[in-house]
Amino acid sequence: MKEQTIPKATARRLPLYYRYLRILYDAGKSKVSSTELSEAVQVDSATIRRDFSYFGELGKRGYGYDVENLMNFFGKTLNDDELTNVALIGVGNLGSALLKYKFHQSNSIRVSCAFDINEEIVGRIVDGVPVYPIDDMLEQIKIQQIEVAILTLPARKAQDIVNQLAEAGIKGILNFTIARLAAPSDVLIQNVDLTNELQTLIYFLHNDGLVETEEKEN
Amino acid sequence: MKEQTIPKATARRLPLYYRYLRILYDAGKSKVSSTELSEAVQVDSATIRRDFSYFGELGKRGYGYDVENLMNFFGKTLNDDELTNVALIGVGNLGSALLKYKFHQSNSIRVSCAFDINEEIVGRIVDGVPVYPIDDMLEQIKIQQIEVAILTLPARKAQDIVNQLAEAGIKGILNFTIARLAAPSDVLIQNVDLTNELQTLIYFLHNDGLVETEEKEN
Repeated sequence: MKEQTIPKATARRLPLYYRYLRILYDAGKSKVSSTELSEAVQVDSATIRRDFSYFGELGKRGYGYDVENLMNFFGKTLNDDELTNVALIGVGNLGSALLKYKFHQSNSIRVSCAFDINEEIVGRIVDGVPVYPIDDMLEQIKIQQIEVAILTLPARKAQDIVNQLAEAGIKGILNFTIARLAAPSDVLIQNVDLTNELQTLIYFLHNDGLVETEEKEN
Repeated sequence: MKEQTIPKATARRLPLYYRYLRILYDAGKSKVSSTELSEAVQVDSATIRRDFSYFGELGKRGYGYDVENLMNFFGKTLNDDELTNVALIGVGNLGSALLKYKFHQSNSIRVSCAFDINEEIVGRIVDGVPVYPIDDMLEQIKIQQIEVAILTLPARKAQDIVNQLAEAGIKGILNFTIARLAAPSDVLIQNVDLTNELQTLIYFLHNDGLVETEEKEN
């Protein structure tokens, strides 16, 4: 594997390739062409070939890719060979939906604890996940050695919680609040802003041709 | 406004700038520097200046930006001066959470109808939104002249629904299912894949320094 910088857009497509390779593997297929892969993941073949090129020789031209090798390679690259425990902060509407969301169904990701201030759910197990009081957050995250947290709490409380999470050793945060959060440089924040997604989509619709496609971007 | 191609990453940051400008405007501020803007939206100043440059002269160097002008400009650019009605397909866990999600609180976006097959909720108004049977989908979308749909139904049903939505005149789809969907070229599909987001975040954590930052990308 070449140690070169990988564009963020490429990194974002890796889980997609991995998921489809597992579907192929489970269906007993041993080879896949870049054309088939392209149709299934809805990414053009040139982009796929360029994405793959960052990881060295993954297949031979004209022979297609070996499904099992490629699946194992991406599984390892994505750390899917070890379980990642994740904390969820804020069991409101979206938080509750995410507790029901089966992240682990096809991946080694598991929400192992949730935190809230609502006394009606604190101390209970909701959809298989224990909900602790927010005051126990630091302790539980340290005990469970959790490095990843999902933020689904009210935006106005988010920055304070991020400060605490950084102190507790959290290294990655998936932020569903509309707050733009500051964190120490060793803590990575990835924003999933649903209003933003809708607004961007509407902008694209009204500015057809004015916006570069994702493929051209990297 | 220059008619030049705007990078997708820039387009995605516009709602962010717009939101913060409205907060400043509501707080009675008339000027904002690119440094202040940078801290608030957590995007570096150079990127902000480059983003803004796609839209011509938006401010004078050293004078900061005029909050009201800039807010109105981005509001118009993002079509926030007219109401966008949106359909939601699939009122399950995530769909229900999104019906409670206040898209319209600060934007001209409103989920005006939802569709499901569950007889317990069909015909009822859930969180202010009427839930119609899926058989009425085409008719309602045409009557209400809706062009944007949110997909929160089971992945295996998604492609069939997308075909129907395209026929009904939908032009933009925010896809929360893990399915990668095919659509006619005049229908834009934006994927919000929650497992993918988590997996990408975990990948970034384990490959620190190997992945380019978003800012370098465009």
